[in-house]
Amino acid sequence: MNKPLILITNDDGFDARGIQALVESLRDEGELFIVAPDGPRSAQSSALTVVSPIRVEKITEKKDFTFYKCSGTPVDCVKLALDQLMPRHPDLIVSGINHGVNSSSSVIYSGTMGAAMEGALKCIPSIGFSLCCDHNPDADMSITIPFVKKISKETLKNGLPDGICLNVNIPYEKDIKGIKIARQAMGDWTEEYICRKDPGGKYYYWLSGNFQCEDRKDNSTDEWALANGYVSIVPTLVDLTAYGFMNDLNSRYL
Amino acid sequence: MNKPLILITNDDGFDARGIQALVESLRDEGELFIVAPDGPRSAQSSALTVVSPIRVEKITEKKDFTFYKCSGTPVDCVKLALDQLMPRHPDLIVSGINHGVNSSSSVIYSGTMGAAMEGALKCIPSIGFSLCCDHNPDADMSITIPFVKKISKETLKNGLPDGICLNVNIPYEKDIKGIKIARQAMGDWTEEYICRKDPGGKYYYWLSGNFQCEDRKDNSTDEWALANGYVSIVPTLVDLTAYGFMNDLNSRYL
Repeated sequence: MNKPLILITNDDGFDARGIQALVESLRDEGELFIVAPDGPRSAQSSALTVVSPIRVEKITEKKDFTFYKCSGTPVDCVKLALDQLMPRHPDLIVSGINHGVNSSSSVIYSGTMGAAMEGALKCIPSIGFSLCCDHNPDADMSITIPFVKKISKETLKNGLPDGICLNVNIPYEKDIKGIKIARQAMGDWTEEYICRKDPGGKYYYWLSGNFQCEDRKDNSTDEWALANGYVSIVPTLVDLTAYGFMNDLNSRYL
Repeated sequence: MNKPLILITNDDGFDARGIQALVESLRDEGELFIVAPDGPRSAQSSALTVVSPIRVEKITEKKDFTFYKCSGTPVDCVKLALDQLMPRHPDLIVSGINHGVNSSSSVIYSGTMGAAMEGALKCIPSIGFSLCCDHNPDADMSITIPFVKKISKETLKNGLPDGICLNVNIPYEKDIKGIKIARQAMGDWTEEYICRKDPGGKYYYWLSGNFQCEDRKDNSTDEWALANGYVSIVPTLVDLTAYGFMNDLNSRYL
């Protein structure tokens, strides 16, 4: 029987610490195949490269370990790996570890989760991991390793339903209390842009923002779990249909 | 009482025919405020510009009609409009009309729908419109106008639940049979990339792909509706939590 084949990607780029932590966590669990962006691709969501070609470069190939970097987005990395680069479909796709939280509404914008959702669309068990380390590139990833191992092994063993992936966020704390299965908290940003004048006197805008989340008070949310020292796991859908509103909407167009 | 204020954006760029069709459809319904990308941003999903500043340029300002172009993604356009450019939050956000279908799994990648989902995150009634015209930039958009009017007026009148927007796809046909409320069909692409050698002998990959959708046979899907001559409306969530899998997942980590 083959060892499990695990595809690894991220959105912080091939040289980020987060991807090294995934390799360290998973090297004993199977054959690792990495296709990661050649530079940072934060907040790329499920964006695709369509108006230009994509390049890949093989960095390493040795026993049970293949590493490519790719000029595209995280989703391009997954698509290209599955369609062109891998010897067969992987048993697991793991994305991250993102340098920064992807809880609550951030799932919508996250390139880390874009890659995991792409796996779910292909019915491959897929997990996005993020560390709540405030985008620090030098974050100590060692606290993540037992959780990455545990959740990845569980998912390799039991799989996931088609069309569902996992959004895992890990608090940046030494004493993590455990794991909570949670729902995506509803939250949003205020004062989203800084507006400044450039040296030529023209205005430019830069994304900034303060995250607001009243929903954090509800102990069923990922925000509550993280604020209280737990790893949060939100099972995340790629079928976005609002089934609960279909009858009501239907009655409007009869 | 103020006229309704309507924010318009798209992902094909400020000079696309689709945006002109939205203006034509909605100019009698309220005050129009357009913030659209300064060029094509197809397949940008909910991507955000985070590593560089964003520029905007006002093209037109007259009574009940303001038009900006923006260097960012469709979601950047919506965020910047709401946070910096508009006099108040709009009563409706309309995105499109996309030159190409955004049914089934395309909702995940679509910049048109990224903009509508951003509106839903802000609890503003929002609609993404797409025409199944095979990305033809010269597509005849006239068939869309009665449907854009009808669905926009209905949504202005009755609103939408918080966190839900509409994904509207319109067949490229003269004789449209009517409107169907539908679920997002599950579908996926095969043979996703063309691989070629450049003049220097290096390989490059270009996204291509054949869409496969067995789910089209099910008359509850958007794909069935479109294949059978109906406009499809899929109510679309920004809460991606797979509630139906939470208990099962919880039992795995007890």
